[in-house]
Amino acid sequence: MTEPTLASRLLAGDRRALARAISLVEDDRPEGWELVREVYPETGRAEVVGFTGPPGVGKSTLIGALTRARREAGRTVGVLSIDPSSPFTHGALLGDRIRLTEHFLDQGVFIRSMANRGALGGLSEAALQAALLLDAAGRQDVFVETVGVGQAEIDIIDHADTIVLVLMPGSGDSIQALKAGVMEIPDVIVINKADHPLTDTMVREIRGVLSLANLERTPEQVKASWRVPIVRTEANRGKGTEELVERLDQHRAHLLAAGTLAERRRRNLRNEVLAIATARMRRRLEADLESDDTFQELLEAVVERRIDPASAAGSLLEREAERAASADAR
Amino acid sequence: MTEPTLASRLLAGDRRALARAISLVEDDRPEGWELVREVYPETGRAEVVGFTGPPGVGKSTLIGALTRARREAGRTVGVLSIDPSSPFTHGALLGDRIRLTEHFLDQGVFIRSMANRGALGGLSEAALQAALLLDAAGRQDVFVETVGVGQAEIDIIDHADTIVLVLMPGSGDSIQALKAGVMEIPDVIVINKADHPLTDTMVREIRGVLSLANLERTPEQVKASWRVPIVRTEANRGKGTEELVERLDQHRAHLLAAGTLAERRRRNLRNEVLAIATARMRRRLEADLESDDTFQELLEAVVERRIDPASAAGSLLEREAERAASADAR
Repeated sequence: MTEPTLASRLLAGDRRALARAISLVEDDRPEGWELVREVYPETGRAEVVGFTGPPGVGKSTLIGALTRARREAGRTVGVLSIDPSSPFTHGALLGDRIRLTEHFLDQGVFIRSMANRGALGGLSEAALQAALLLDAAGRQDVFVETVGVGQAEIDIIDHADTIVLVLMPGSGDSIQALKAGVMEIPDVIVINKADHPLTDTMVREIRGVLSLANLERTPEQVKASWRVPIVRTEANRGKGTEELVERLDQHRAHLLAAGTLAERRRRNLRNEVLAIATARMRRRLEADLESDDTFQELLEAVVERRIDPASAAGSLLEREAERAASADAR
Repeated sequence: MTEPTLASRLLAGDRRALARAISLVEDDRPEGWELVREVYPETGRAEVVGFTGPPGVGKSTLIGALTRARREAGRTVGVLSIDPSSPFTHGALLGDRIRLTEHFLDQGVFIRSMANRGALGGLSEAALQAALLLDAAGRQDVFVETVGVGQAEIDIIDHADTIVLVLMPGSGDSIQALKAGVMEIPDVIVINKADHPLTDTMVREIRGVLSLANLERTPEQVKASWRVPIVRTEANRGKGTEELVERLDQHRAHLLAAGTLAERRRRNLRNEVLAIATARMRRRLEADLESDDTFQELLEAVVERRIDPASAAGSLLEREAERAASADAR
C-alpha cells in the first residue's frame, strides 16, 4: 500500500496536511504551487468573507465570535490572518483575553497567520494560495483578516465573496476616507465596541455616507444593489454576532439570487492571475537588478542623472525580453 | 530663428511649458516621456516634501500656508496633489475657503492635481514624472500631497526627501496604525486643527508610539537617527507654519549632514525604476488579456476551476516571453 499523497490528505480535510501545505506556499516552494494546481478543481465551495479595518478595532475578536457561531451551526471554519497587528499573528497566547484558545483545540477550526512582510509581493500571492488550500481542505467558511485603513486596493480582501469593514467609535479617519470616496464601500459595516457613547453619532455619519454613495449610482445599479447594513457588535461579549451572521447569510443569498457571485469571482480570479504574474515579474526584475552588473551600472547612471528612470525601466524590460528570447532559443 | 523647444522653455521655468509637459506625461504620450528623458540631467535640485494623512485633516490648507511662507522667503513652489479627496483636485473654486486662490495668481507657484484613478498603475508613474518636471522647471520646493491612512507603501510619497504625516485630533485609526507598526514612522508629524481640546492627549499618544519605535532600533540607528518632531498647526489661520518651516529645514540639514540624502534618493530612484518597469509590464499583460483569445480561454479555464491562477499566470508569462522573442527575431 502506498502512502496517501499530501494532496489526497489535504482534500480529506487533514489538518496537518493543510498546515504543511500552507507552509509550502508561504515558503514559495515548487511543491506548494504544484499542490495548489492539483487541488484547485476542488475549490470554489467555501464561503470566503474578508474582514478589513484599522488596527485595534477588534477584528480578531469579532472573527473569534463569528467562528463560535459557525461552529455551533456545525460548519467548519478556516481563518487566515494577514494583519501584522493581529493577535492571531502574535500567537495564541493572547487567546484567553480574546477568547480564541477554545478554537485552537477545536478540530473544526483552522487558524493561520501570515505576516512575512519581507517577501515583496510574495505575501499576498501566498495568502491567495493559502485561501485556496483552506477551501480545498473543505473549510466551509473561510475568514480572511487584513488590516486596511482607507486604501482602496487591498489585493487579498478583493478575493472575498463578502467584504466586511470593521470600525469602532473613534474611527474618524476611516469615516473620512469613506466619505471622500478614497475607501470603497464594503458589503457589510460592523461597528464594534458599540457600547461606546459615540456609537449612535457614528452610525448616523455612516448612513449619511452610504446614502450619498447611493446617489452616485445609476438606477440599474441601485435596483440590483445591496443595501449595506451597519451592524453594532460587542465582540468581546459575543453581542451582535447573531445579527452579523444573519447579515452575512443575507449577503450570500443576495449574491446567489442576483447572479453576481459568479461575476464577482470571475473578476477576482482575473485580478488574481494578473497579480501573481505581476508579482513574479517584479521579483525576477529585482533579482536581476541585484545580481547583474549592467543593471547596477544602469542604476548608477540614474542616480548620477545621466539616464532618467523611465528610460532605465525601458532598458530593463528590453534586457528581460532578450533573456527570455535567448532562454527560449536554447 | 527657430522656435524654442518645449524642453528649453520648461528648463527656463515657463509655466505654460510646464503645464503642457505634465499633460503629456499624464496622457502617457511618448513626447512626455521623451521630454523627461531630455530634462532629467537638470533635476535633483528641488527639495521634495511629501504630505500624507487621512482625508479631511487639512493637508491642502497646510500646503497652502507653507507655500505662502516659502514664497515670502523668495522661493518658487510647485504643488502636486495626488489625493482624489483634495480641494486642489476639485479645482480652485474652493480656494477662497482654503485660501489658495492667492497662489493661483502667483507666477511663483505652480499647482497641479492628478486624480485619474482609471489608469492602472499609471497614475503614480505619471506623478513621479510630473515631480521631475517641476524639479527641472526650477521649482525650489516641490510639495506632493497624497492621501494615506495607514498603508505603508504609498509609492509616490516614497520619492520625497522628507515625509510629513498630517493628522488631526480624532485621527484614531492612524495612531493605531502607527502603534501597530502598520504605518511607517514619517520624518515629521503635524497635528493640524490643534485648537481642539484633545490635541494634548494626542501628542502624548504619538510621543508614546515614537519612543517605542525608538526602542526597536539598533544603537547605530538611534545614533544616526532623526528625532521625529510633532508640530501643532492651525493651518487655516497660518498658526504653526513657522515652526513647521523650521522643522523641515532642520530635516533637510540633517539629511545633508548625515549624508543620507544621497542614500535616500538612490533607494527612491531604484524603487522608481522598478515601479515603472512593473507598471508597464502589468499594463502590457492587461492589454494582452483583453485582446488575445488564448488569454481569454485561459481565464475561462481558471473560472471553471480547470487551471489554477498561478499556473495561468505562468502561461501568461511564458506567452509574453515568446512574443518578446518573436518580436526580437523580426
